[in-house]
Amino acid sequence: MATIPGANPIDTVGAIPPGLRPGANVASALAHTARLHPGRPAVVDGAVRHDYGTLERRVAGLGGGLLGLGLRAGDVVGVLSLNSSRHLECWLGVPRVGLVLNELNTRLAVAELAFILDDSAARALIVDDTFLDAGRSLVASCSHLHHLVHMAGDGTAPATAADGRDIVNYETLVAPPAAPMTDSRTDDLAGIFYTGGTTGRSKGVMLTHGNLVANAKAMLIELRYTAQDRYLHAGPMFHLADGAATFAVTWVGGTHVFVPSFAPGPVAAVIEAERVTVSTLVPTMINLFVNAPEVAAHDLSSLRCIMYGGSPMPAAVQQRAQEVLGCETVQCYGMTEASPAGTVCRIDGPVDEEPWATRVRSAGVPFTGVEVSVRRSDGAVADVDEVGEVWLRGPNIMAGYWRRPEETAAALTSDGWYRSGDAGRMDTDGYLYIVDRMKDMIISGGENIYCTEVEAALISHPAVLEVAVFGVPDDQWIERVHAVVVLREPGAACEEDFVTHCRPQIAGYKVPRSFDLRTELLPKSGAGKILKRELRAPYQ
Amino acid sequence: MATIPGANPIDTVGAIPPGLRPGANVASALAHTARLHPGRPAVVDGAVRHDYGTLERRVAGLGGGLLGLGLRAGDVVGVLSLNSSRHLECWLGVPRVGLVLNELNTRLAVAELAFILDDSAARALIVDDTFLDAGRSLVASCSHLHHLVHMAGDGTAPATAADGRDIVNYETLVAPPAAPMTDSRTDDLAGIFYTGGTTGRSKGVMLTHGNLVANAKAMLIELRYTAQDRYLHAGPMFHLADGAATFAVTWVGGTHVFVPSFAPGPVAAVIEAERVTVSTLVPTMINLFVNAPEVAAHDLSSLRCIMYGGSPMPAAVQQRAQEVLGCETVQCYGMTEASPAGTVCRIDGPVDEEPWATRVRSAGVPFTGVEVSVRRSDGAVADVDEVGEVWLRGPNIMAGYWRRPEETAAALTSDGWYRSGDAGRMDTDGYLYIVDRMKDMIISGGENIYCTEVEAALISHPAVLEVAVFGVPDDQWIERVHAVVVLREPGAACEEDFVTHCRPQIAGYKVPRSFDLRTELLPKSGAGKILKRELRAPYQ
Repeated sequence: MATIPGANPIDTVGAIPPGLRPGANVASALAHTARLHPGRPAVVDGAVRHDYGTLERRVAGLGGGLLGLGLRAGDVVGVLSLNSSRHLECWLGVPRVGLVLNELNTRLAVAELAFILDDSAARALIVDDTFLDAGRSLVASCSHLHHLVHMAGDGTAPATAADGRDIVNYETLVAPPAAPMTDSRTDDLAGIFYTGGTTGRSKGVMLTHGNLVANAKAMLIELRYTAQDRYLHAGPMFHLADGAATFAVTWVGGTHVFVPSFAPGPVAAVIEAERVTVSTLVPTMINLFVNAPEVAAHDLSSLRCIMYGGSPMPAAVQQRAQEVLGCETVQCYGMTEASPAGTVCRIDGPVDEEPWATRVRSAGVPFTGVEVSVRRSDGAVADVDEVGEVWLRGPNIMAGYWRRPEETAAALTSDGWYRSGDAGRMDTDGYLYIVDRMKDMIISGGENIYCTEVEAALISHPAVLEVAVFGVPDDQWIERVHAVVVLREPGAACEEDFVTHCRPQIAGYKVPRSFDLRTELLPKSGAGKILKRELRAPYQ
Repeated sequence: MATIPGANPIDTVGAIPPGLRPGANVASALAHTARLHPGRPAVVDGAVRHDYGTLERRVAGLGGGLLGLGLRAGDVVGVLSLNSSRHLECWLGVPRVGLVLNELNTRLAVAELAFILDDSAARALIVDDTFLDAGRSLVASCSHLHHLVHMAGDGTAPATAADGRDIVNYETLVAPPAAPMTDSRTDDLAGIFYTGGTTGRSKGVMLTHGNLVANAKAMLIELRYTAQDRYLHAGPMFHLADGAATFAVTWVGGTHVFVPSFAPGPVAAVIEAERVTVSTLVPTMINLFVNAPEVAAHDLSSLRCIMYGGSPMPAAVQQRAQEVLGCETVQCYGMTEASPAGTVCRIDGPVDEEPWATRVRSAGVPFTGVEVSVRRSDGAVADVDEVGEVWLRGPNIMAGYWRRPEETAAALTSDGWYRSGDAGRMDTDGYLYIVDRMKDMIISGGENIYCTEVEAALISHPAVLEVAVFGVPDDQWIERVHAVVVLREPGAACEEDFVTHCRPQIAGYKVPRSFDLRTELLPKSGAGKILKRELRAPYQ
């Protein structure tokens, strides 16, 4: 390795520097617990209950099975599944043997999934019952994708895919022989997680074993999970908002509890039945949850802490959440590129008095071991309370974007800072306030929606002259996708036409929920840039 | 950097790999807290009380002052001092600006200190009043040592050293201008810590910023320090047994409390006066503490946890400690080479029942993120309960021995394991039992005898205060088991009594064949470890 400038030449001793040593496999979190507490309850998924010894055996079996298909270290494995204990096994078993996990957003259109699987060059895809048909289409269309694995609810799998290829039964894969854990180094790749691209194109965030370990430690230090915790996977497991807790909970030997997908009634029922103590939600889910009448019938007293992220929670929702949940709510700010821990806001005083009356609207303070800085456009550190771009640095920051060297170079500075693209300010006490998403992104129902992607879908309609998409406040979704469309001629198209036009191109949740159709041109800056701020103003 | 075999070529993106990025300076623990909680109490040292804002300013000033002397990044700074808040400033301020901390054992002779300072090539030495004369001798005799800094109790410093050189007043050094924190990388050197030299020449353990950060995180996860904790530096601060908690306590904004050096009465008084919650001791100190009559007069109810390490505590001492301290006692096993976190034993059930009746004698389980393995002499993993050498791996394991490539190569394997030289076994539940320091094993009549086992048998006799067992040359047995026993009172017991006492507990060949009965306490290292080498010397 290169000599590090300014440091003592410790590399001259010939030993591997500590920062690049093996032994960093993130799946060691499971091995650790399985060794010490094999009998502890690891997963509760309906009738499926495994202790940590069993989970470790299954995960080791999954690794062995995947290698048995002919996959080799560094190969990418896609996973398209609702929440389940088997889905957790994929999170652990794929990186365990040096393979790279490619979690897929279950709400994407098949065309979008195909783009991602082609881009990541995934060689295998694991699907559950819900996504078997999608899996069949994908394995037929993606050139690198050679293996389709089916996690069948009844334990069996259909013999063949549409093109005559064998479909692998997941339970066969999990059976012995097991594979040993790969002796991964800190900087070995553990997963590729796709986020919406500013240019419309989705791009893969490369997270290393060291990144995920760093996030897990940050979560353990701040959220203080213990073996007594029972963590509910309520939000989608493909998303790092939920994934953030996965390795941390495993490391301390807590119990993973699952619901297939979020719905207030079933979530409340599981919290009561399984004495759930902790979970992660997005504000939209909390909003739905606390306003659902069926929740009131359930005993939620086991809850000790709900972490939420994605966007700040309106004060009214926050207050109602406090009443209904009756536990601590901790806001976190982060992003896939940060694995995802960035900042954390633990309320530590009465919220009807300062400083907490103000601070509850903040994103909090950096996680232990993460640096956060607000910068001007020239990279200089902004003053207290001055709005600038939020930069983050730490062992949790991604290695880069998968096969996008230019975008990596734009996102990561030469001294290791990640430029988030979010606008924020930091107060005199070091609390971060997110002012705006610089990247022109909407967070609706916890999903990141890049406006450019929606605009690209709309502009391809022949009646459209100009378009601007942005988020407007919404009771249910916190923000909803709104489109201002300039028609070439009055009455050339209606809202229905645009919805129909968008559906095959982008996921349902990205399609605008409200429109403003007009013929008047959009306001623009001197440089010709559409002034979204002006368009947005009447909605604030 | 080199491509990592078996991994995806993430280095091709041109970004710095996460494992080697800057932003890892261990002093960021202080910057973090000073930014968020400048008003929190940071240090309590007699009349000296600083909040975190003040501590950060002083530490930044110290860094600026040292650079002002002409020191440059990578230069080594020795520190020879009893415990004090200024000593803490050195722990933080030296690495903060890219200098390398060389903590010195205060019990060493000047000749031994001179050897270390020559070996580390220290360019500056910081001493307190107690060690001013030693500092004068050292600066005169060590060829690399150009600067002597004096932390004067009265704030002033003598003008010149014996050779006419200026002695720098520490308070002048701490005054502005401050220096910014160095943007250290994970693998940059933060300190060189010399090991006791129980096996010959003292050698310097190189710990990087990443090593110390990893240890701090492990301590936060396992010991769960909070801002409400008040940590007493009771053991010597030059030793990593105490240093282990330093950055962790700082990171969460706890308060550092100091006593100049360990003595039962003053420690008990400070615990009461400052409502101390946590501390680190070695068993010898605990033994002295719980047997000191003056301790009983003090209220120790603020204590929540005493961490101890260095050697296991005999059951009798453990029980007495529980009664006197009235708080959780957590045993940790580690060593300087591991920064020092290795394993931790938190008792989690009644100690008069299994499994804890047995486990209380264990060193516990690996810290989160640390791997521990027991190996045979050929490197193969030992069976459950088979005695072998204890190996450790993780981000806390040293970069190597300072300028000792051969010893580094002998201690660190090519895949990053540290061979501790200690003999241990691991039970079926993953609990580690340290059987002996490998070099402290007696081979008598072809049988392996582990000294700790014999010592445990002897210490359970009511007349015994302290004991040391070792091998001495013997015509018949090559080595015979010899015991030095410190009696509570002269004539309290005779050799026959001890033989009779041991027989039912240990095999006949393990019972000491010769004794040295005395009332004078045993010689100890600065860390409180019994110096068997000194006891053994007359027999060689």
